[in-house]
Amino acid sequence: MAAFGYTRAMRQSQLFTKTRKEAPKDEVSKNAELLIRGGFIYKEMAGVYAFLPLGLRVLNKIIEIIREEMNAVGGQELSLTALQEKELWEKTDRWSDEKVDAWFKTKLKNETELGLGFTHEEPLTRLMKEYVSSYRDLPFSAYQFQTKFRNEARAKSGLMRTREFIMKDLYSFSKDKAEHDMVYEKIKQAYINIFNRLGIGGSTYVTFASGGVFSEFSHEFQTLSEAGEDIVYVDEDKRIAVNKEVYTDEVLESLGLNKSNLKERKAVETGNIFTLGTRFSEALGLTYKNEHGETTPVFMGSYGIGPARSMGTIVELYSDEAGIMWPRSVAPFRAHLLTLGEDENIKTLGDEVYKTLEAEGVEVLYDDREARAGEKFADADLIGIPTRVIIGSKTLESKMLEVKDRATGEVEHKTLAHLLQELKNG
Amino acid sequence: MAAFGYTRAMRQSQLFTKTRKEAPKDEVSKNAELLIRGGFIYKEMAGVYAFLPLGLRVLNKIIEIIREEMNAVGGQELSLTALQEKELWEKTDRWSDEKVDAWFKTKLKNETELGLGFTHEEPLTRLMKEYVSSYRDLPFSAYQFQTKFRNEARAKSGLMRTREFIMKDLYSFSKDKAEHDMVYEKIKQAYINIFNRLGIGGSTYVTFASGGVFSEFSHEFQTLSEAGEDIVYVDEDKRIAVNKEVYTDEVLESLGLNKSNLKERKAVETGNIFTLGTRFSEALGLTYKNEHGETTPVFMGSYGIGPARSMGTIVELYSDEAGIMWPRSVAPFRAHLLTLGEDENIKTLGDEVYKTLEAEGVEVLYDDREARAGEKFADADLIGIPTRVIIGSKTLESKMLEVKDRATGEVEHKTLAHLLQELKNG
Repeated sequence: MAAFGYTRAMRQSQLFTKTRKEAPKDEVSKNAELLIRGGFIYKEMAGVYAFLPLGLRVLNKIIEIIREEMNAVGGQELSLTALQEKELWEKTDRWSDEKVDAWFKTKLKNETELGLGFTHEEPLTRLMKEYVSSYRDLPFSAYQFQTKFRNEARAKSGLMRTREFIMKDLYSFSKDKAEHDMVYEKIKQAYINIFNRLGIGGSTYVTFASGGVFSEFSHEFQTLSEAGEDIVYVDEDKRIAVNKEVYTDEVLESLGLNKSNLKERKAVETGNIFTLGTRFSEALGLTYKNEHGETTPVFMGSYGIGPARSMGTIVELYSDEAGIMWPRSVAPFRAHLLTLGEDENIKTLGDEVYKTLEAEGVEVLYDDREARAGEKFADADLIGIPTRVIIGSKTLESKMLEVKDRATGEVEHKTLAHLLQELKNG
Repeated sequence: MAAFGYTRAMRQSQLFTKTRKEAPKDEVSKNAELLIRGGFIYKEMAGVYAFLPLGLRVLNKIIEIIREEMNAVGGQELSLTALQEKELWEKTDRWSDEKVDAWFKTKLKNETELGLGFTHEEPLTRLMKEYVSSYRDLPFSAYQFQTKFRNEARAKSGLMRTREFIMKDLYSFSKDKAEHDMVYEKIKQAYINIFNRLGIGGSTYVTFASGGVFSEFSHEFQTLSEAGEDIVYVDEDKRIAVNKEVYTDEVLESLGLNKSNLKERKAVETGNIFTLGTRFSEALGLTYKNEHGETTPVFMGSYGIGPARSMGTIVELYSDEAGIMWPRSVAPFRAHLLTLGEDENIKTLGDEVYKTLEAEGVEVLYDDREARAGEKFADADLIGIPTRVIIGSKTLESKMLEVKDRATGEVEHKTLAHLLQELKNG
């Protein structure tokens, strides 16, 4: 990850953000409140957040995990545009505001109406007409990390529901349902990998939700949280759930679930995978010639996940009254080095440890500010970097670093060599 | 670069894009025509292009070079939003369409007007009020790679002038003009580094252009090209130029330039750096307390570069009738491996060489398709990967690979070990 333009190490005195005592008064969600106070995000307006240096680091780590898993299943990355043509979306009957209530619309100077993409089935299906003609071209998948715009009527859940956000949307193109089903299963497994790597796999359930013409169900990835806007019924033993929208006796029976084993829980829809079938390929004419020379519509699927929503969910799950507790895989830095007091020997030792960690490839934030110990501790708790390393007057004598785990609160004293070994192991 | 989610190696048979014989008929620019034909970009509508896998690789390499140079001068990366509030931009008198003709405007459901950011001085200046209060907080710089929207009346220059594009915009925040001037010089040098690394430094001139209240001139980076929309007057010996907009006897004299040494040339404005002074900090109230406790407006600068415009410019400069000739630093892959013919031994050798290159960390595109040699050569010329490696029947006997340089056309025969050594050296 560090190679992706990351400065591996940073002095906190140079970071332009500071922690804040309070979030904006209109901010009611825990994730946004903590992320704003910690200097991760900035609220531009309701449902619209800028990502500050610490927040962008977390977001990019989440993105990179998703990207790796999409590449691992053969996804090819591209990047479509926000600006969308009316004519294209009329062909699938998704242009009018009556049919789709999430559109932001705008206009060219010559009054041509344009939309801001809230999803990208239409443009990608049209694009593929240029490249798909034969069964030999299938199957394949294409994905992007691209900014979606959704004109949400209400946006009070912090990063959970925003009007502008990066979404990873992958689309699969297969010859037929049988081939699609194999692709779909592979990507479903990739999604499970993603949530495990993000540290929220244990709370995330593959959830049966409403499907469509081509599949009885779609699958949501629902992460249990009181901050969630969805209601799901969870079978903890079977590790699956059912969305309230399809929670009927008939569905339960078809899934072999017993009502008495299900618990009603609130959850965040952190991912969604969907069998599109030929809905878009037929409407837009994306066809291929099969082995017998017959013109056949391509069978499609779509697979979405919002990195920022995952980030908000992680904060909801991993935080306490003092602040955030980032899982290592997505933490803005692996270690937070703090010096206490103004003793020059302490500063010198701090600088040495900092340089060593940096040289050894450890991502480290170094709190070299002239600030009281209490302030440094409070900021470190709020920012939530997994491992805190403290250098104070005792360190000068003992040569042992005080190492505290943000999540467990456990404190150990370690030599620099011992610490390095631990940090480099993950 | 490879660590940024890149698949290091790829089989061309798996790539969903194909080359095209022709670009859309309404495409008149050379850069877009070649990039569309090569499968790098897709035209959604005039001035709006999607980036396909090969094109996104190039774009990301350009972005990564810019990012490294911005980090090297201490820039802190963040990401602001496209959606913009009317009230904010009214404070600097940049909301009305009479004042700014590039706005795309849209609306929330409650009819609140919003704009799509064409630049970000206003939101970033407002954001910094949260974090800047003392002279100790200055100077610093913040930058982003973020999608801008500009409602261009005409968009016929391919990637040179688009309605939606990623821009790197950095903003500097200093205590006063003297401090700003030092920051500005440092960033100017970073820009020179960027264009050198992109391979277009030799054709790019620091160009004096119109300034503002706080500085007599701004500086543009103008890359000489017949595809350019600007007119500049170039002093080749002094390696500077003057934009037509400030080309007066008075200005030439103040710069110590002699008209007879200047050549009129067309050029692409590939970068622009600008002293903003206190225009935005005064209007929006971004102030700090100086050493004497006096409230003082922050002194600002802005520094822009469009990665896609650089990409288009590179294509304009480095292409011939057969296609593109990517500089190594931004090429989608370092090597293009081609097998010729259907002989199983050739395929086996091709697979072996491919696996070796991949294992050794060489970014390689492997044309393993069942296609005629002529078609493979034409596609390779069009796509423009720097080094072509050909495996044919002769290779089986001689064990020497035919290695062709796309730019020079030079052909050499090399052992795999020799080739590897060369590719790994850059």
